[in-house]
Amino acid sequence: MKVNVNPAKGMRDFLPLEKEIRDYVESSIINTYRQTGFELIETPVIENIENLIGSEGGENLKLIFKILKRGEKLDDFSRINITEKDLSDLGLRYDLTVPLSRFYCNNRAKLPSVFKSLQVGNVFRAERAQKGRYRSFKQCDIDIIGEKSSVAEIELITTTSKALSALNMDNFSIRINDRRILKDVILSCGFSESEFDNVCIILDKLDKIGITGIEQELNAKEYNSDSIKNLINALSKINENGTKSLKEYGVEGETIENIDYIINSVSELSEGKYKIKFDFTLVRGMGYYTGPIFEIEYEGLGYSIGGGGRYDKMIGKFIGEDIPAVGFSIGFERLVNQLIEENFKVPDLQKIVLLYESENKYVDVLKTANELRDKGYSVSVYEKAKKLGKQLSQFESFGYTGYALYSCEGTQIKEFESVKQ
Amino acid sequence: MKVNVNPAKGMRDFLPLEKEIRDYVESSIINTYRQTGFELIETPVIENIENLIGSEGGENLKLIFKILKRGEKLDDFSRINITEKDLSDLGLRYDLTVPLSRFYCNNRAKLPSVFKSLQVGNVFRAERAQKGRYRSFKQCDIDIIGEKSSVAEIELITTTSKALSALNMDNFSIRINDRRILKDVILSCGFSESEFDNVCIILDKLDKIGITGIEQELNAKEYNSDSIKNLINALSKINENGTKSLKEYGVEGETIENIDYIINSVSELSEGKYKIKFDFTLVRGMGYYTGPIFEIEYEGLGYSIGGGGRYDKMIGKFIGEDIPAVGFSIGFERLVNQLIEENFKVPDLQKIVLLYESENKYVDVLKTANELRDKGYSVSVYEKAKKLGKQLSQFESFGYTGYALYSCEGTQIKEFESVKQ
Repeated sequence: MKVNVNPAKGMRDFLPLEKEIRDYVESSIINTYRQTGFELIETPVIENIENLIGSEGGENLKLIFKILKRGEKLDDFSRINITEKDLSDLGLRYDLTVPLSRFYCNNRAKLPSVFKSLQVGNVFRAERAQKGRYRSFKQCDIDIIGEKSSVAEIELITTTSKALSALNMDNFSIRINDRRILKDVILSCGFSESEFDNVCIILDKLDKIGITGIEQELNAKEYNSDSIKNLINALSKINENGTKSLKEYGVEGETIENIDYIINSVSELSEGKYKIKFDFTLVRGMGYYTGPIFEIEYEGLGYSIGGGGRYDKMIGKFIGEDIPAVGFSIGFERLVNQLIEENFKVPDLQKIVLLYESENKYVDVLKTANELRDKGYSVSVYEKAKKLGKQLSQFESFGYTGYALYSCEGTQIKEFESVKQ
Repeated sequence: MKVNVNPAKGMRDFLPLEKEIRDYVESSIINTYRQTGFELIETPVIENIENLIGSEGGENLKLIFKILKRGEKLDDFSRINITEKDLSDLGLRYDLTVPLSRFYCNNRAKLPSVFKSLQVGNVFRAERAQKGRYRSFKQCDIDIIGEKSSVAEIELITTTSKALSALNMDNFSIRINDRRILKDVILSCGFSESEFDNVCIILDKLDKIGITGIEQELNAKEYNSDSIKNLINALSKINENGTKSLKEYGVEGETIENIDYIINSVSELSEGKYKIKFDFTLVRGMGYYTGPIFEIEYEGLGYSIGGGGRYDKMIGKFIGEDIPAVGFSIGFERLVNQLIEENFKVPDLQKIVLLYESENKYVDVLKTANELRDKGYSVSVYEKAKKLGKQLSQFESFGYTGYALYSCEGTQIKEFESVKQ
């Protein structure tokens, strides 16, 4: 019987060379974050379904993988009006923020009053399968819980920047906005509370469709024409004058000071290596943001490689007491794809293949391998093939840096070049 | 609204201190395995349900977490005779061997003809919840695929031993047996093929119930009394004379030579640091083993901390062509628990907390933190609390090794001891 040997739809197998790059990137990010005082925690990929469904995950709630109840918990199938709720008690997490909030509430007594969390893990979304879109992918999140002042935003932004620099990805810039600014400006232009969300969705497209495109889409939705005119004027004014123009639109002084403080502090700490700029059209999808929001853009890419913001109300949903929180997530898959695109090589790997012949004493071959390992090489032991040239070029393609032919009189390491000539 | 903030049943949150130990152990194992030429790969936690159900996982098949179909794929609930099969198309893996077999078949053309695989990942089993038994746990597997000779067993056993030694867990020994030996001896005593599996299950208990216990259980099952007598005699004879006595029970000469070769080679390579011994009563649960099987025992523990064996027929189920394969799995959770029991500390951590006061300029505080990080410290920045002593002893309990009070005139690192006095 032949069976389907592909990974399930939207899932991926990682071969050694790609896995090596992924692991290198992951540990580089983790090292930077740990060195900056963030503490690695781990939460399970399976959560109680009500915690996932009760979160403000927007569109993601429709994409949850739900786990079938088991044995006695699984109701009799023959009864009428069975719903998904009768069938499922668990689900796979769709992000790392909801599990972090639950984790914090569960372990609060054992954590510092301001907790700097680092989480790296896979999340799952039952997206419609298409090229470059996966149903399981990795996220790297840092979050600061319990800090209401904007030192939290400054630390998250500068630390994430550090993680990118450590991977030599220096061509990035930060865009920052504030949910409260978005709201104040849009309402002061004449839109209603109920129109706010949809106006945001349109604004979010400025990069792609330009100001005239925005105007057309707003008109197509038949909003009040004065409101539209006001917003279009606001856009070009804010584009020109940045946060200085916000006062005219009823934005509170404290909110403006706050975002200016973040921008100025990050600028100073960046030492000119990257830019941070206010961008009124930055929106971000999740419903749970309450203050500053930010994204990282990498030069030449049409999408962000990371983003985050302040979500002061989410933890309160679990324990009935608001706890301030800010998070910044790196889109690991996009980062790795970009590095592979740029022909990234994992540094300092010394992978050697040691070849023996069937008449050699295997125990002695392994002893020689151990001696080479003690010298710092990664040594893989294989039987020599009849066609040595073909075998060696295969190992070269697997990322090996050299080879050695076992000899009881002394085994020498050679580079692959010497074979080809 | 208050909600349940515990992890789902059988799942765990890992706090920073425990996570640090787990990560250290994991990377120590990975480093040893990589240095020995095993290649890290990754397979998804979600597999198509038919690949899981069609595997020979024994009791584990009853413990699969099944994922509910989504949207249009989910049949109308109101129709009659709905079965689990109508509701679920995906499942979570219960081990790493089944996914590896699928992976190998899927990627065979891109892998060396003998592939040395390393996989570390979580597996999921819907076990009945009880203390110390988890529904999600980590496994570390090395497998050699495509090697029919017993150099594969020798390499797996010596490499796994190396991984334990690298963690200073030197009080272990290896037990080895062969499925074919078990079968030949038991059948030659007079039991039938159909009785074989149940006799194995009883034999497996020798450690716990002794020879008289075995005899009682065999009698209770009402097997032929001559067969029982023969087997009890065989047990003490094999106990005394080891593999030398196997010929009398019709075990093939090649099988005996093969296991002797493995035992002698491993003994020589162990340099006297650990023991390997033949144990006729080693059985192991999985149905898919076809040759040598082995386990690691750690001194004083009542259970094994790793095990494996040869499974030459499993990959054939996927592609209709038998490919030889051997694997060795470390029980990561048991290993970590044992290390924590032994008061294991992660070496060489220099975790410092840098405390500032609200009147300090935050940007300058972060600059000082960066200077300390450049010197190799992990530095976490926190605002100084009113009760400094209490704050410091809290950070000490979180695993920090020292602290510094920010001063614009120069910041010094101090050990915690200096505060207590």
